[in-house]
Amino acid sequence: MSTYGLIEYDSASPEVRAVYDDIRQVRQTDSINNFWKALAHDPVTLRRTWESIKEIMAPGALDTLTKEMIYVAVSVTNQCGYCIASHTASAEKAGMTPEMFGELMAVVGMANETNRLASGWQVEIDERFRRG
Amino acid sequence: MSTYGLIEYDSASPEVRAVYDDIRQVRQTDSINNFWKALAHDPVTLRRTWESIKEIMAPGALDTLTKEMIYVAVSVTNQCGYCIASHTASAEKAGMTPEMFGELMAVVGMANETNRLASGWQVEIDERFRRG
Amino acid sequence: MSTYGLIEYDSASPEVRAVYDDIRQVRQTDSINNFWKALAHDPVTLRRTWESIKEIMAPGALDTLTKEMIYVAVSVTNQCGYCIASHTASAEKAGMTPEMFGELMAVVGMANETNRLASGWQVEIDERFRRG
Amino acid sequence: MSTYGLIEYDSASPEVRAVYDDIRQVRQTDSINNFWKALAHDPVTLRRTWESIKEIMAPGALDTLTKEMIYVAVSVTNQCGYCIASHTASAEKAGMTPEMFGELMAVVGMANETNRLASGWQVEIDERFRRG
Amino acid sequence: MSTYGLIEYDSASPEVRAVYDDIRQVRQTDSINNFWKALAHDPVTLRRTWESIKEIMAPGALDTLTKEMIYVAVSVTNQCGYCIASHTASAEKAGMTPEMFGELMAVVGMANETNRLASGWQVEIDERFRRG
Amino acid sequence: MSTYGLIEYDSASPEVRAVYDDIRQVRQTDSINNFWKALAHDPVTLRRTWESIKEIMAPGALDTLTKEMIYVAVSVTNQCGYCIASHTASAEKAGMTPEMFGELMAVVGMANETNRLASGWQVEIDERFRRG
Repeated sequence: MSTYGLIEYDSASPEVRAVYDDIRQVRQTDSINNFWKALAHDPVTLRRTWESIKEIMAPGALDTLTKEMIYVAVSVTNQCGYCIASHTASAEKAGMTPEMFGELMAVVGMANETNRLASGWQVEIDERFRRG
Repeated sequence: MSTYGLIEYDSASPEVRAVYDDIRQVRQTDSINNFWKALAHDPVTLRRTWESIKEIMAPGALDTLTKEMIYVAVSVTNQCGYCIASHTASAEKAGMTPEMFGELMAVVGMANETNRLASGWQVEIDERFRRG
Repeated sequence: MSTYGLIEYDSASPEVRAVYDDIRQVRQTDSINNFWKALAHDPVTLRRTWESIKEIMAPGALDTLTKEMIYVAVSVTNQCGYCIASHTASAEKAGMTPEMFGELMAVVGMANETNRLASGWQVEIDERFRRG
Repeated sequence: MSTYGLIEYDSASPEVRAVYDDIRQVRQTDSINNFWKALAHDPVTLRRTWESIKEIMAPGALDTLTKEMIYVAVSVTNQCGYCIASHTASAEKAGMTPEMFGELMAVVGMANETNRLASGWQVEIDERFRRG
Repeated sequence: MSTYGLIEYDSASPEVRAVYDDIRQVRQTDSINNFWKALAHDPVTLRRTWESIKEIMAPGALDTLTKEMIYVAVSVTNQCGYCIASHTASAEKAGMTPEMFGELMAVVGMANETNRLASGWQVEIDERFRRG
Repeated sequence: MSTYGLIEYDSASPEVRAVYDDIRQVRQTDSINNFWKALAHDPVTLRRTWESIKEIMAPGALDTLTKEMIYVAVSVTNQCGYCIASHTASAEKAGMTPEMFGELMAVVGMANETNRLASGWQVEIDERFRRG
């Protein structure tokens, strides 16, 4: 269960506990995901990763639901089992319905298909899509 | 310029023209992307791919802008130059602002990072994220 | 043009020339691909890679055309521009027609799509597909 | 066992049953793979995906065995556990022997290696491989 | 040249200039890579990404050369042309010789090959490699 | 447990035993990994893969520890569960500490993130990074 095991709150160092506490407050939950408990063996990466995610996933020009569905789209494309499971749950918590999930998967599947058709047929970028 | 070159409207067969016509009508544009002009050498795949995309990208439980941003997210993860260029343009046409694009890229980048942290640290899926 | 440039036959060391000569004889051609000319800066990798490819791509239980199409399928999935261009040419030389290429791309595209649908929907392997 | 569970024939809606019936007839089998049973929660995607696969995998310029081996090649490159298991079984049903499988894996492995050597050494596409 | 063009120092906002100044000081160079100039359209991501890289790439348990070669290994595996070019240059600056580069590519190529052999042959993890 | 099961030493053919013996001697261990036992169904690939790995992983311009960490970096990027588990163990055997592992993962994660930022923002390669 993870390369060096999971660090639970009770046996965590103060700097790890501080991150766990912040996760709990921001996410309004008591649970700490295994992801964080595994990463806690490297407190510097734990802190930096959490601070980055907190900044990135906060609602801004895009709302939380959209961001969580994008997270699922990337995780499915990379076929990361852990991330698919955890971010599908996060997206549902943010309001994703089964209908939305179905359409999300349909777009992800199709994009993965046409990415290869475009590369395989060696299609050149249209002049009007070129930047700069 | 594509494996077998691009088939322009004027030299296209009737079945290819029918697809081109439908693309123009649905997308409300005169332009046909190089992607379709390259694929036109295989009319069966041209038609099936267009029909699938038309069905998938129509607004439903998710709106067009969200779908186009998901398309960009997948294309960036796969690093498909053609698809990044063309779907960034489509997303902009559907209303994506530079602020939205910036947040989209931030989520895509972070998801690609944590996908590897989760796999690299061999994190097991939390019991509460397991289905069935 | 490649990280350390291309090594042409005339300026190659004897051990590199020996590999070039063998490539020319086995492939019945005078041309040496840029791939080998770039790799020639590392003669050990040049030799090992060529010997491996020679062994793997020789006709056996699968014929050369099938092997070249599989090579294209992988290269398209990985979106390696160089490999798509060179192995599409090799497959054509081995007999791949435009119709075959079209069907090859269709299968590659669909497999890339359903790979993600299977992962995204978190589908468990059917009991009868399990080994051992 | 899949994001929303598996839909068995007896509890399926008429439109899902129609797809299941067609799969059974085309594939000459009683079994429905978990893949379809999971996807059945989104009947539109179920139908479109099945119709696409039926069209693509039918024998044409390439025979069924070659198509199934290409499917395996893509699934292995993407490391999709479900697809590797199910399409290895399909390929065996279509006539793939252990010797063929061994050669298929050898080509897939080598292509994945040289894809990275070509990209890593920044090899430019040979003039004679350029299209258009 | 990048989605929204490149922001040069002279036309940069104070917050972007502050990041550019820090990059120049830490890297002991006058040049700012196109990567940062493109990202500067999203100052929040620019700052966070630079701060993260500065922390991660500083010498620690691993030295700078090793870290830069790992960066190249990932970039080659993902086939990111920009990152291969820029991090090969960074690795050379940190002391990578052509011999080291050759061995780095050989390992990257082989790992990409055996990753697929392991997945394709559906090899189960040995009991003694399991954690926890 | 692997597509065709695992071939143990006692039931192996002489040519497979010869490879097993060499693995044991070079690696100074009695254990043969499941990877080799699965691959043994294809003795030609078994021998070629082992000979290649033996040549590539021997200390040269890069030491064994660096090579094993590069192997882990690639395996994590490709998300190959088997290879992550086995090469993390090999790297530890070669001297990788938990601190080194943490920094390795941090670099791998960041490289996967910036690879996508570079592609997504369509950043052009800086003139001074271009070769040839």
